Amino acid sequence: MIIVMKTSATPADIEQSVKNVEALGMKANIIQGTERTVIAAVGEERVAGIRSLESGPAVDEVFSILAPYKMASREAKPESTTVRAGSLTVGNGQIGVIAGPCSVENEEQIIATARAVQQAGATALRGGAFKPRTSPYSFQGLKKEGLKLLAKARAETGLAVVTEVVSPSDVPLVAEYAEVLQIGARNMHNYRLLEAVGRCERAVLLKRGPSATIDEWLLAAEYILDGGNPNVMLCERGIRTFEAHTRFTLPLATVPFVQQKTHLPVVVDPSHGTGHTHLVPAMSRAAIAAGADGLIVEVHPEPEKALSDGYQSLTFEQFEDMMGGCQRIAAAMERQLGEWTATQPARTG
Amino acid sequence: MIIVMKTSATPADIEQSVKNVEALGMKANIIQGTERTVIAAVGEERVAGIRSLESGPAVDEVFSILAPYKMASREAKPESTTVRAGSLTVGNGQIGVIAGPCSVENEEQIIATARAVQQAGATALRGGAFKPRTSPYSFQGLKKEGLKLLAKARAETGLAVVTEVVSPSDVPLVAEYAEVLQIGARNMHNYRLLEAVGRCERAVLLKRGPSATIDEWLLAAEYILDGGNPNVMLCERGIRTFEAHTRFTLPLATVPFVQQKTHLPVVVDPSHGTGHTHLVPAMSRAAIAAGADGLIVEVHPEPEKALSDGYQSLTFEQFEDMMGGCQRIAAAMERQLGEWTATQPARTG
Amino acid sequence: MIIVMKTSATPADIEQSVKNVEALGMKANIIQGTERTVIAAVGEERVAGIRSLESGPAVDEVFSILAPYKMASREAKPESTTVRAGSLTVGNGQIGVIAGPCSVENEEQIIATARAVQQAGATALRGGAFKPRTSPYSFQGLKKEGLKLLAKARAETGLAVVTEVVSPSDVPLVAEYAEVLQIGARNMHNYRLLEAVGRCERAVLLKRGPSATIDEWLLAAEYILDGGNPNVMLCERGIRTFEAHTRFTLPLATVPFVQQKTHLPVVVDPSHGTGHTHLVPAMSRAAIAAGADGLIVEVHPEPEKALSDGYQSLTFEQFEDMMGGCQRIAAAMERQLGEWTATQPARTG
Amino acid sequence: MIIVMKTSATPADIEQSVKNVEALGMKANIIQGTERTVIAAVGEERVAGIRSLESGPAVDEVFSILAPYKMASREAKPESTTVRAGSLTVGNGQIGVIAGPCSVENEEQIIATARAVQQAGATALRGGAFKPRTSPYSFQGLKKEGLKLLAKARAETGLAVVTEVVSPSDVPLVAEYAEVLQIGARNMHNYRLLEAVGRCERAVLLKRGPSATIDEWLLAAEYILDGGNPNVMLCERGIRTFEAHTRFTLPLATVPFVQQKTHLPVVVDPSHGTGHTHLVPAMSRAAIAAGADGLIVEVHPEPEKALSDGYQSLTFEQFEDMMGGCQRIAAAMERQLGEWTATQPARTG
Repeated sequence: MIIVMKTSATPADIEQSVKNVEALGMKANIIQGTERTVIAAVGEERVAGIRSLESGPAVDEVFSILAPYKMASREAKPESTTVRAGSLTVGNGQIGVIAGPCSVENEEQIIATARAVQQAGATALRGGAFKPRTSPYSFQGLKKEGLKLLAKARAETGLAVVTEVVSPSDVPLVAEYAEVLQIGARNMHNYRLLEAVGRCERAVLLKRGPSATIDEWLLAAEYILDGGNPNVMLCERGIRTFEAHTRFTLPLATVPFVQQKTHLPVVVDPSHGTGHTHLVPAMSRAAIAAGADGLIVEVHPEPEKALSDGYQSLTFEQFEDMMGGCQRIAAAMERQLGEWTATQPARTG
Repeated sequence: MIIVMKTSATPADIEQSVKNVEALGMKANIIQGTERTVIAAVGEERVAGIRSLESGPAVDEVFSILAPYKMASREAKPESTTVRAGSLTVGNGQIGVIAGPCSVENEEQIIATARAVQQAGATALRGGAFKPRTSPYSFQGLKKEGLKLLAKARAETGLAVVTEVVSPSDVPLVAEYAEVLQIGARNMHNYRLLEAVGRCERAVLLKRGPSATIDEWLLAAEYILDGGNPNVMLCERGIRTFEAHTRFTLPLATVPFVQQKTHLPVVVDPSHGTGHTHLVPAMSRAAIAAGADGLIVEVHPEPEKALSDGYQSLTFEQFEDMMGGCQRIAAAMERQLGEWTATQPARTG
Repeated sequence: MIIVMKTSATPADIEQSVKNVEALGMKANIIQGTERTVIAAVGEERVAGIRSLESGPAVDEVFSILAPYKMASREAKPESTTVRAGSLTVGNGQIGVIAGPCSVENEEQIIATARAVQQAGATALRGGAFKPRTSPYSFQGLKKEGLKLLAKARAETGLAVVTEVVSPSDVPLVAEYAEVLQIGARNMHNYRLLEAVGRCERAVLLKRGPSATIDEWLLAAEYILDGGNPNVMLCERGIRTFEAHTRFTLPLATVPFVQQKTHLPVVVDPSHGTGHTHLVPAMSRAAIAAGADGLIVEVHPEPEKALSDGYQSLTFEQFEDMMGGCQRIAAAMERQLGEWTATQPARTG
Repeated sequence: MIIVMKTSATPADIEQSVKNVEALGMKANIIQGTERTVIAAVGEERVAGIRSLESGPAVDEVFSILAPYKMASREAKPESTTVRAGSLTVGNGQIGVIAGPCSVENEEQIIATARAVQQAGATALRGGAFKPRTSPYSFQGLKKEGLKLLAKARAETGLAVVTEVVSPSDVPLVAEYAEVLQIGARNMHNYRLLEAVGRCERAVLLKRGPSATIDEWLLAAEYILDGGNPNVMLCERGIRTFEAHTRFTLPLATVPFVQQKTHLPVVVDPSHGTGHTHLVPAMSRAAIAAGADGLIVEVHPEPEKALSDGYQSLTFEQFEDMMGGCQRIAAAMERQLGEWTATQPARTG
C-alpha cells in the first residue's frame, strides 16, 4: 500500500498514518519526497479495514500494490486452468463453443437448436430456464420445465448444458440438470449466489458485470474458488459505455490482460457484447484472434419469433457460417475450435 | 414503437415487419419518407417479445415511444408519493435524513452514532448488518447480531432503522427488525430479491445500480410495486464513468428528471456518490438544491477505525456541520430538512 | 513516482529501473515488499520522458505522486483567484452569471437578450459568433458580423462579452471585441489555441472536454497560465457517460474537488451539462449549493426558433425565475449572485 | 424525424409542432397512439435549426431517422473506397500497415525504424513532428526539422509518410512532406483543421475522438469530403470508459458497424487503443479478424528511452513477431497484409 500524504501534512499526521499502518500488521517505510511524504506499507493488503488508511488526517491518496484476489491470481497458480464439464473443454488451446437460444421456449425449439449447433461444431448447449428480466412484463422463463427440456436435449445430442442460476435456493435444482451453472452479468455482485455455487460441484461460467472492474470480477471468482469450487470460467460480455450503437461495448483487450492476471480461462459472449446479429460473426473471429478460450453465442431457429433477445440471435445457417470463419482463425492461432472436423464445410463468416 | 426500415427494404420486407407488428396486437402505420420507410406501431408496447421487432429482415432501428414501466410512472399516479416509515418521512416537501455507519460494528458504536445523528436532525438510522462486499476477505457484517443492535438503537432513540437485505431468504428476518429494507446498488438487478421485498410490508429504499439506465431503475421499482408494495423510495448513489477522482459520479440531474417521470420520492447518497468525506457536505447541499426528497449519509464515531467505508464517512461533528449547511439550503427551497429545529445551531457546512 | 515491479522481476530488472529513474535526475528508493519490489522515485516528475519508466523490463505499474500541473495548483498559489473582466467578477464569493444565446443571430435578438439577462441579474453576455458545429450542414455563426453585434449589445448594456474563439488566427480579432475568450469543450485539447490565448490579455473561460480528466483539464489551464495569462476561469459543462437522458452528465462533485486542487475559479454550464431546458434551473441551484463561482446559461427570446441549441435555452421569463431560485441559494451560501439587487422580485425557480 | 409528444399535449401543442415541422420544409404525419401522439416529419433532416423541433411546447423526445452525414454514407457511394498514398494502399482487401515511432526524435532513430518496419512488412511510416501534448512540460516535437527527417526516411525506404497536423496554418507545410495527414483524436472536433485538410490534396487519416459518437466521427469525415478531398481513412483508436487497466477501451465492433454505414476504410490503432505494449499484438490480430482495413502501430528502437509513448511502443523484434501473427490471421481472412511476402519468417505473435 502506498499512502501519499498531503503537502500540508505535519509530522504528527505522518506519525498517525504510520500508526494506522502498523495497527494493520504492516511495516511502514517513510519516503521523504521533494514536495510530499509517501508511506510505503509493506505486508498483507488483503485484510479487513485496509481502506481505512485513506481516512488518516492528511492522507491525499492511497494506491494498492497487491492484487486484491489470491486464489484467482496467476501467481498462486502459474499454469492455465482447463475446465471440463461433460462435452465441454475450455482452456489450454481448446476453444469451447457454447451455443443455443437465450430462453428455452419449447421442446421443438431446444432440440432442433441443440442438433443444429452440434452439427456446426458447438460443444455445449446454452438455454435460459430462469431468466432475470429487466421488466416484470417480459417472459420470465420456463423454470423447472425448461431445465427438463435442456436435459432432454442433452440426452439427444450429448451436449453439456449451460444454464443460468439466479438465486442461491435454486442452485441444487439447477445443478441437478446442468453441467455448467451460469452466473449472469447482473448477478456478478450477488455474493450469496457466488457462495452457493462455490459450494457446488458443477463448473461455473461467471459473466462480468457491465460496470465491473477487472479486480471486482476476479474477486467474484475468488468467492467461488474460496468456496471450494475450482472450475470457474470467466466470461467477458461487454461493458456499459457511452457507445449507443451497440448494446454494450465489447472490450477484447480484456482477454489478453486477464489471461496474464489469472489462470482461469476467458470466454467471450459476442451476442450480448454487441446486441446485433450482424456484428456477432466479426466479433467472434476477433475474440479468437485475441486469444479467447471460448465463445458463448445465441442461436435460435427463428430469431424474429424469439421470446427474448431475437435481435442478437443467429439463425442456424448464420451460426454455421460464423463457425466456418472462426475455424479459419482458430487454425491460424493453432488452436482447436469446438468439435470442428474436416467434415464441416470451411465457409468464411 | 417506431420501426425504421433500411433504405434497401423491399415491399416484401415492409410487409413482413407489418405482420410482425400485428402479431403482437399492435396497429401498423406506414410512413413513406424521402429516403426510408418508417412503421409506427400503435398499441401496448409492454408485452413479451416486443424487441423481436428488431429482427425483421430489413429493420435498421427500433425506438420505443412508451415508458417500459407503468405503475411507477407519473402518468399512472400524478401526485407525488410520500413514504412514511416510523420516524422517517420522505416526499412532498419533507426531506428525510438517514444517517449512520456503513456497518454495525458493536453496541457502543451504533448507539453513540444513533444519538449523535438524531441530535443533528437525522430522522432515521442506517447501518449494515448483512454486507455485500466486493472481496471475500472484507468484513461481512454482524448479520442477525447487527440487526439486534439496530433494534436496540431504535429503542434508545426512536429512530427508524434502514438496513440492507441481500437475499430473498433473509427478507422476513430483516423485516422483523427494520422499518426500511434497503436494496443495494449491486442488487438492483436481483429480481428475486425485488419480488421478495415487493411481497413485504416494509418500505423499500431502492438504490440505482452503478450502470443502470433510468428505465432499468424504474423497472426495478416496478417489480416491487407490482408485488403489492407501494412504499418505494428511489436512491441515486452514483454511476460508473471514466472519472477516477471520485468513487462514482453523482449525476444530480437525475433528481429533477426522475421526479418528472415517476411519483416516487428520490433520495441521494452523497457518501457512495463521491467516496470522499470532504466532498459529502457540498454534494448534500447540491442534492437538496436540485430538489432531492432525502439524503442517506455515512457517519461513524471514528472513521479511521471503521471496518468499512471509513474514507467516505463523516465524524459526528462533520455531520452536524453538514446538516447546518443543508438546513440553510432547505430553507431557501421552502422545505423541511429532517427534524431540524431552531434549537440546533445554524452552522454553515 | 512509484514503480511497482512484477513479481517475476530479477535483481537485474530492478537495477535497470533504478538506472532509468536516475537518468531522469530522480533518486530511487527501493522498498522490498512481501510479494513485490517497489521503487519510489523522488524528484521532479514534470519532465519529458517520465512515462518511459513504464517501459522497464519487469515494470507492472507506475503511479504519479505529484500533480502534473504547477502554476494552476493551489500549492503554487494558496489564495483563490478572482477573475475580473469588465462587468464580470468571478471568485472569492462573487458568483458571476454569464447568460445569452448559443449563437448571435441578428441585432434584435442579441440586444433584446442582453437587456433581459441584465435585468434579471446577469453580469456578462454570452453569444457565439464563431461556432464549432458537429455537422457541416449546421449554422456556422455570423463570424465578424456577430462580434460587432455583441459589441453593440455591450454598448447598450455595459455587459462584458464572452464569446468563443476556435482558431489561433482568430484570437486577435475576437480579443478586439470580447472581454472573455471562451475555449469550447471540443477545443480544450487544441494546444495551439491554448498557447494563443495564453499570449493574449483577455480573460479566458476554459471549458472541460467531455472526456477530459481533471488532470488533463488543469494541464490545459497550465498552457494558458504558462503563456503569461493569469485570468483563467474553468468551466465544468458535463462529461460523456452511458446516461442518455441528458445530453451530457454534469458531475458537480468536480466543483469542490477542483477548488481544492487549484486556485482558479470554477464556473458551471447547466445548459450543455443537461441539454434540456427543464433541467437547467435545478442544476443551476445545485451548482451554487456545491460552491460554484459562476454560471453560464443559454437564454433566447424564442428557443423554438433558435438556430442552435434551442432545446436547452431558457426564455427570458424562465431565466428570471431561475435567477430567483438561485439567488435564494446564493444567500443561503452567503454569496453574491451576479448583480442581484433587492429590486428584483424574489421568485422561486 | 419522429417527434414524440407528451401525454399532456393539447391539440394546440400538436398544431404548433406541426407548424414547426412545416417551417423547416418537411411534411408532418400525425399518428394518434393509445397514450401519446407522435408526429413523423418527412423530408430532409440535414438542415440548420432541425433540433429546434425539440423545443416545441409539449415535445417529449425527438428521434432522427436519417444519418446526419451524406457524402460519407454507403448509401451515397455503395462501393468501398480504396485510399492510395504512395506506398500505402488501404481498403478492398488490402490491409495497410503504418508503423513507426510516436515522435521523430533524431535521424538515426527514424531511419532505423523505417528500415525495420519496412522489412517486417509495413507499407507506411508514422512519426510525429508536431505533437499535441497534454502537458506543456512534455516533449513537443521537432516540428519542421522532424518533417525533414521523415522525408529522408522516405528517400531511404520508399515508405509513404503519415504524420500529424495540428493547426490549419501548418497544413501546407506538412502536406509538402507527407503523403498522409493525420488528424489526431484530440483534433477530431477541430473543424477549421478539418476544413483545411479538406481543401488539401493529401490523403487524411482521421482518428476518432475518445468520446465521439459514430455520427460525430462520420460528420468530421463529412467536413473533409465536403471540402473536396475524397481520400479519407477513418481510424478507431479507443474510447474513454471506466476501464482503467487500459489507457483507452478499443471497441472493435466499431469496425464492422462503421463499414456498413460508410464506404470509407477503417484503420485500427492498437497502440493508443490499449496503451500497453504487451496488449498490442493480440489486439492487432483481433482488429484484422474483425475486418479492419489497416493498422497503425507504434514502434521504437528503444521504447525505454522514447521521448513519448514508450510504454505502448513495440521493439523491432516485437513488431516483426506481431506481423507474423497478423499475417496468419490476414491469410485466414483472405486478405493481403501490408507488403508481407514469403521471404518473411512466419512467426506467431
